[in-house]
Amino acid sequence: MPQRIIRLLGGKDEFVSGEKISSELGITRTAVWKKIKLLRKDGFIIKAVPSRGYKLIKTPDLSTDDILAHVKGVFWKDVVFYHTVDSTNETASALSLRSDIQSGTVIVADAQTKGRGRLGRTWVSPPGMNIYMSIILRPEIRPGDATLLTVLAAVACANALREQSGLHVSLKWPNDLVVSDKKTGGILTEVRSDPDRIHVAIIGIGINVNCESRDFPDDIRPIATSLKVETGKYQARSGLIIRILEEFEAWYKALEGRGRRPLLEEWKRLSSTLNRNVKVTMGKETISGLAEDIDEEGMLIVRLSSGTRKRISAGDLTILR
Amino acid sequence: MPQRIIRLLGGKDEFVSGEKISSELGITRTAVWKKIKLLRKDGFIIKAVPSRGYKLIKTPDLSTDDILAHVKGVFWKDVVFYHTVDSTNETASALSLRSDIQSGTVIVADAQTKGRGRLGRTWVSPPGMNIYMSIILRPEIRPGDATLLTVLAAVACANALREQSGLHVSLKWPNDLVVSDKKTGGILTEVRSDPDRIHVAIIGIGINVNCESRDFPDDIRPIATSLKVETGKYQARSGLIIRILEEFEAWYKALEGRGRRPLLEEWKRLSSTLNRNVKVTMGKETISGLAEDIDEEGMLIVRLSSGTRKRISAGDLTILR
Repeated sequence: MPQRIIRLLGGKDEFVSGEKISSELGITRTAVWKKIKLLRKDGFIIKAVPSRGYKLIKTPDLSTDDILAHVKGVFWKDVVFYHTVDSTNETASALSLRSDIQSGTVIVADAQTKGRGRLGRTWVSPPGMNIYMSIILRPEIRPGDATLLTVLAAVACANALREQSGLHVSLKWPNDLVVSDKKTGGILTEVRSDPDRIHVAIIGIGINVNCESRDFPDDIRPIATSLKVETGKYQARSGLIIRILEEFEAWYKALEGRGRRPLLEEWKRLSSTLNRNVKVTMGKETISGLAEDIDEEGMLIVRLSSGTRKRISAGDLTILR
Repeated sequence: MPQRIIRLLGGKDEFVSGEKISSELGITRTAVWKKIKLLRKDGFIIKAVPSRGYKLIKTPDLSTDDILAHVKGVFWKDVVFYHTVDSTNETASALSLRSDIQSGTVIVADAQTKGRGRLGRTWVSPPGMNIYMSIILRPEIRPGDATLLTVLAAVACANALREQSGLHVSLKWPNDLVVSDKKTGGILTEVRSDPDRIHVAIIGIGINVNCESRDFPDDIRPIATSLKVETGKYQARSGLIIRILEEFEAWYKALEGRGRRPLLEEWKRLSSTLNRNVKVTMGKETISGLAEDIDEEGMLIVRLSSGTRKRISAGDLTILR
């Protein structure tokens, strides 16, 4: 229930009347006031002004100051916070056109109004509970190697989430973070490039942290989950983001120093896709076969029943049982 | 000489004093006034205000109204003119983030202050004489096929330039328009993409139309030329742009309707690279061999002396004699 109040108050810079909260939640205004007091005990700073209502000033678990204090250095330059954005990738993309925005800038939002997944699909992004962030990098890699950045972010997230939640988080090619065969996160890497080089890479990360099953729309509820749903425990977002950024930096340095092999091996270790029979849809084409490997460029190698191998850069993958 | 006055007046929305023009050009203020009158006879609209100086209102040969009147339709949606931009690709890139900017929008500028070629190299972009434009497309092609758009633009430009100037314009892989072995134009395609699709492609086109040899800096003068230098004739820019856009549209439709084969055949017909011994530098690596073919994705196939074939997506190519 407090979650639902946060959902009403979060992601906006304005007052919401007690009357509105009471009618949306079907409880009395006195009950609303009690819930607000409980939230304040939990560390939420909520302003209350008679005749105007309530305004959320600060969620206790998401602080860019905390994040910066832990990660700022040679690699991570800045963390920029927004209450609400259309999508963190769009915001990062627009910001990245400015020459004063450095490689290693991270955009974090409490809510997205147009959160996106692959192929323009919606990413459910209520305020106050989940992670929506985009990393801006200006990496010195060739356009064909962009997929490596998705692999890197996926490895960083899986390791950070495993450590912080204790859950067996695995990776489903090309971009899903999975717990108990349900999606708890995803990576969406977008690049601006010419044939010679990548000008900027935007690595979008969405993770369902503290949302409940009821926060997902009916159609995706059966295939989506969150750390809270799986563990029953509330998880502070700042701590998770810090661990993700630390892992990301470490793997990026490993990639620069030791090449792509260790990263790809780690991806394979965390993968729930390899050695499974899969169906992959790419636009109008669908193939089925054994997911055998990922290659040096992060492409999936599928062995068809005919024995031929297909190299796939992107697609919708279903694991066949 | 009139060219040099245009160069002083062009690309800015302000008055330039007669005194400044006279001192820059080393002629009397009366001589300046005479040149201005000659330019006006040629169709230039130049405002003269005592004590403020001269201001260029309109160059006769570059009119977005003319261009739109000829090409606007299902494919080409809008032509947006700027006196001066940093670079048309940067401007197009920023505009393309707006959802109201449609596929088929063309950015045309009279001058660029930070014109760019491949690998961040400078593209000489004085006002009043050349073509600097960027096409915004939202094409339904996969990221790996982005190079086809460079091929397409190169074919369109070569055909339009051959027809309008009578010159034997040829194509040097990956992105040069060449006359008499000197560069008269170039294409710079930049994309914003995720692994599944291209969100937007910006196809930058720069063509040296009416500039003179002295307009090029010393270091590139030996390798650069313009249509004016080669033909001795002044060429209206609007007409050239119209023919480029018409050719581009025709080849785009051919690509959609008949696949990539006809386009690649046309590129080969116009190419001065194939069947030549070449040296290609890609970052720190350099290879030499016979430029044998370009493949279905627009990659150059080079046969090394060892007999092995290399597939190259981008690089600096020198034709060996």
